[in-house]
Amino acid sequence: MNLLKPSSSMEVRVRDGFWNRFTELVRKTVIPYQWEALNDRIPGAEPSYAIRNFRIAAGLEEGKYGGMVFQDSDVAKWLEAVGYSLADRRDPELERIADEVIDLIALAQHENGYLNTYFTIKDPGKQWTNLYEAHELYCAGHMMEAAVAYYQATGKRKLLDVMRKFADHIESVFGREADRLRGYDGHQEIELALIKLYQATAEERYLRLAQFFIDERGQEPSFLIEECERREGYSIWTGRKQPIPTMKQLAYNQAHLPVRDQDAAVGHSVRAVYMYAAMADLAGLTGDQELLDSCRRLWNNMTQKQMYITGGIGSTHHGEAFTIDYDLPNDTVYAETCASIGLIFFAQRMLKLEQKSEYADVLERALYNNVLGSMSQDGMSYFYVNPLEVWPDASAHNPGRHHVKAVRQKWFGCSCCPPNVARLLSSLNDYIYTASEADNGIYVHLFIGSEARLRIAGGQVALKQRSQMPWHGKSTFELSEVTGAAFSLMLRMPSWCGGQAGMKVNGVQVEYDVLDGYAKVDRVWKKGDLVEWEPAMTAHFIVAHPNIRANAGKAAIERGPLVYCLEEIDNGGPIASLSLSKGSTLAFQYDPDLLGGAGVIEVEGYSDERASWREDQPYRPLEAAASESTAGPVKLKAVPYYLWGNRTPGEMAVWNRIR
Amino acid sequence: MNLLKPSSSMEVRVRDGFWNRFTELVRKTVIPYQWEALNDRIPGAEPSYAIRNFRIAAGLEEGKYGGMVFQDSDVAKWLEAVGYSLADRRDPELERIADEVIDLIALAQHENGYLNTYFTIKDPGKQWTNLYEAHELYCAGHMMEAAVAYYQATGKRKLLDVMRKFADHIESVFGREADRLRGYDGHQEIELALIKLYQATAEERYLRLAQFFIDERGQEPSFLIEECERREGYSIWTGRKQPIPTMKQLAYNQAHLPVRDQDAAVGHSVRAVYMYAAMADLAGLTGDQELLDSCRRLWNNMTQKQMYITGGIGSTHHGEAFTIDYDLPNDTVYAETCASIGLIFFAQRMLKLEQKSEYADVLERALYNNVLGSMSQDGMSYFYVNPLEVWPDASAHNPGRHHVKAVRQKWFGCSCCPPNVARLLSSLNDYIYTASEADNGIYVHLFIGSEARLRIAGGQVALKQRSQMPWHGKSTFELSEVTGAAFSLMLRMPSWCGGQAGMKVNGVQVEYDVLDGYAKVDRVWKKGDLVEWEPAMTAHFIVAHPNIRANAGKAAIERGPLVYCLEEIDNGGPIASLSLSKGSTLAFQYDPDLLGGAGVIEVEGYSDERASWREDQPYRPLEAAASESTAGPVKLKAVPYYLWGNRTPGEMAVWNRIR
Repeated sequence: MNLLKPSSSMEVRVRDGFWNRFTELVRKTVIPYQWEALNDRIPGAEPSYAIRNFRIAAGLEEGKYGGMVFQDSDVAKWLEAVGYSLADRRDPELERIADEVIDLIALAQHENGYLNTYFTIKDPGKQWTNLYEAHELYCAGHMMEAAVAYYQATGKRKLLDVMRKFADHIESVFGREADRLRGYDGHQEIELALIKLYQATAEERYLRLAQFFIDERGQEPSFLIEECERREGYSIWTGRKQPIPTMKQLAYNQAHLPVRDQDAAVGHSVRAVYMYAAMADLAGLTGDQELLDSCRRLWNNMTQKQMYITGGIGSTHHGEAFTIDYDLPNDTVYAETCASIGLIFFAQRMLKLEQKSEYADVLERALYNNVLGSMSQDGMSYFYVNPLEVWPDASAHNPGRHHVKAVRQKWFGCSCCPPNVARLLSSLNDYIYTASEADNGIYVHLFIGSEARLRIAGGQVALKQRSQMPWHGKSTFELSEVTGAAFSLMLRMPSWCGGQAGMKVNGVQVEYDVLDGYAKVDRVWKKGDLVEWEPAMTAHFIVAHPNIRANAGKAAIERGPLVYCLEEIDNGGPIASLSLSKGSTLAFQYDPDLLGGAGVIEVEGYSDERASWREDQPYRPLEAAASESTAGPVKLKAVPYYLWGNRTPGEMAVWNRIR
Repeated sequence: MNLLKPSSSMEVRVRDGFWNRFTELVRKTVIPYQWEALNDRIPGAEPSYAIRNFRIAAGLEEGKYGGMVFQDSDVAKWLEAVGYSLADRRDPELERIADEVIDLIALAQHENGYLNTYFTIKDPGKQWTNLYEAHELYCAGHMMEAAVAYYQATGKRKLLDVMRKFADHIESVFGREADRLRGYDGHQEIELALIKLYQATAEERYLRLAQFFIDERGQEPSFLIEECERREGYSIWTGRKQPIPTMKQLAYNQAHLPVRDQDAAVGHSVRAVYMYAAMADLAGLTGDQELLDSCRRLWNNMTQKQMYITGGIGSTHHGEAFTIDYDLPNDTVYAETCASIGLIFFAQRMLKLEQKSEYADVLERALYNNVLGSMSQDGMSYFYVNPLEVWPDASAHNPGRHHVKAVRQKWFGCSCCPPNVARLLSSLNDYIYTASEADNGIYVHLFIGSEARLRIAGGQVALKQRSQMPWHGKSTFELSEVTGAAFSLMLRMPSWCGGQAGMKVNGVQVEYDVLDGYAKVDRVWKKGDLVEWEPAMTAHFIVAHPNIRANAGKAAIERGPLVYCLEEIDNGGPIASLSLSKGSTLAFQYDPDLLGGAGVIEVEGYSDERASWREDQPYRPLEAAASESTAGPVKLKAVPYYLWGNRTPGEMAVWNRIR
């Protein structure tokens, strides 16, 4: 097993025709827009109060606390995104704003290191009395991630020192000693953040604290239950006493069982994947085989039985949660953006532990579909919920579907998703490569144009990746710096190529071995060597396991990493009355006019006969009109899922009947 | 237009091979069982508190109020069912119990006529301050219906007098005069009850009061909004102040618009249909053409665009409500039992106004499917929600489907449905015939074995219906008493016979005219004349309007009045992996061993290939296994929907893929 590399072993800059559009959007539009939002300056959007809370907590302003109990985390996620963005491209004005925010944060910190504007302003003296609901360690975790990102981008230590001081304070509060809280947060996040803090500072105490939180979770007697009993059930959400949760109910927080005993993804999906990511980190850093086994089991359950084809997870909006194996309704779905981002975090950690392409396949699926589709093409509005089937009228009028929006929304009251998208898209460079000491080489997980300098056993390597993804399968790798000794390039063979991929080195076709889904080419590389890698990219109808009831008799369309969908604007409605023809070719074409340019797929299908139906007739015998057995053939046009809902609002479906 | 006949114009007793089983069940099991439930004597069931509340209100017992704010109505509905049952068959012991309950109710009545145990025990002094939520007039209405039923069955006036006194009190409280409340109840029911009271007493004041409630509803300024403002939004449900509702939100109570301006069925579905029933009654009794037009519009919208094939209405459990046209999800459905019962009430009233078979078609559909299926075969447990598709695991673990039960439940905390079923099934005799003065004859709406004495223009007529329904289409009518003059028999030509029905009179085939869906035979009848009527009953695949997205590509099976379904116990699961063969015959067979005897339908279909699917593979290209394009042929067995869920719990679906 490979130990996690300190991130300094790798310097990667994304320079990609497809992704630059989005990373630029984040830099030029999303980060400035979110800054306005954090300062309550977006007309028509709900105020965030997030910066104002810090000003009040810092003593610079009078006022009441505003927003959700975890509002601080929005500032943290924004700062983290700023860190990644500055790492890619300096921007003195942005850095000046960030430095001011950091000054403000430092001013809001208590003498003893404590930092949380909710408890400072609204509930002083109640610190650490409601881990179950109050997201105190969660907010701390996000600010730690921001501190690490900002430090690594700018070398400035101020926020890092603030958060070390807070981490030290947390360490003095929590532990197994009699005078400490033997507990953990209701919403996992601090665990993975403490590991980042450990990696940035080499302070092993932070690693141990993360381990403590993971190990205590789900133990009996339950800390969360006893804590609720101490509060007599008082809830900050309702302002009243609530029933004390049972162990079973703590599945919502993945605290129903010790993490090593958990077999299936349950509960609030974001909490789950943030925890799994930390578990994988810990398994790698401590060599804990039992924890690794748990990670594998949870990964398998989640990605093989509870994941949408778009990489969405969490089937119900009630508790934003997992339900049971194969329960993947397309229309009442949740598939929260943040959950897919957390799934990407988990996949990234698993990839560091064991280089198996299945992790990268899922990572790519979630990234190009659920996550990318959550943001509008102008970066100004977002989906929380990423449905696979939408009927706008039903979303508007059926309360069971109110959570499924047909149109992306501006900044939300609970605005976790937009800054999460920003921090992920501005840190894509972290997901492309792994430099492996054990395998003496470089793994390429994602095909995203980039310039990378990586340290392997033999020394420093630099390469330049160019990619035609996602519209064509080909990527090239030019070695711009080599070690002189032999080392391997291990190129992912994506699941979507069906095992068909051509490789050339300096123009000459070469054979290669495939190990755990990676094509390996091992040689003494020379500067200027060029590897061409071309996984076959053709469009396919995809069908679902027969246990996924929602997709019975239906097919989706995939091409490369992209899932496609039918939209009403292209095909008319109801979309449900359309079906795909099993024998159809799937004709791909790049349409430069579609939302800045995108590939579309034309496919033959059928449209159910409508003309013979009377308005007053909801049901009739099948034989009443012979014509319906010969539904008319039509040409259907599928567009990438990530682009849905960017034109006239209408119906959309990923899964459509096929015959 | 025909005016409503006083019910004394008709004496009908049900004597039917199919229905007697259920009416006997109501008499021998349901009514006694519900009596135990009302007295909190069912082990394992939530206490009702309903009788205890009356004892406390009557001063016979100390204690707190228990149950829902409308708990009184359970006693009323039980008493109403007892009335119908006694009308059919005297039972001195049951009558003694009922008399005791009536004595108790009389004791709980206030000096001024007021009667409601919630406000007597729990909130004295707050009478008539929360019509929006408190169901005061609703409970009064149910007790009025009970009083009329009991009076008509036994001739005993005590409860009728109690309720007249209460009605008189209500009349003194409500009205357009300055010192009265110009309002109406949040939950319609009193309107139709006052009309029954008028019909039983000939006191036109009660008709006028019903008309007042109907006319005031939805007027602006809104009584309900102003009332909420007077309470400052205080809610008895939450015990706290709530936002004042808007006119738009009052659609839940059908109080968003004057009833004459309403075009579409909206809001809480039970409230809606109870109101429509009263509107139809009023239209008939007052000759109000505008109100009749509203009834027709609402009927058409509801039954043509918002009704399930089972006669269920209300697509969402949020507010137990209608959503929008064609939004009829099978799995997240509500289709409350009480709503279908209310739909039957409305259909019955429309049938009295205008004898068009479409009303009886819907009535029959709701009765034989949604309503009959709500009760277990032993009468001891009930569905509130009557789904068209159930996956028990998802119901258990996906909160968006918790309301959809796979197994009928015992007496509920909010137990509106079981006593509603009891009162409907014990009053089936009211739904079979209409004696029409205008048409000088007798309409037969339902084919239910029965003995009837009806008064028409020419005098008294008696007939005996025998029916083979629902397993065979044939019914016979023997005239046992005639007038000597010519009169018509008008036999419904049910929608399910596709216009094919044979008629014989005294063994000789006769021609007939069809008017508004009724086959008319007009002659001077002789005693002993026998009419045989045989609508063609064959099984059909039924398809749904293309706008009903949920049923695209699917078919249901109907035979006669019965909708069929596939259950896991007969066909294996997942049911979603099965499909029907378009070309299949539908082979009907009576199975004497199925739950006491029932017809089943065998049909050819396909089962999606499963063997080639790996456990770790949620999605794969269509071409990966050629075998799946040739899903294996299987024999499928469909059972009547009303019987589903009476054996081993499992998956069930009414709509299945067809190809």
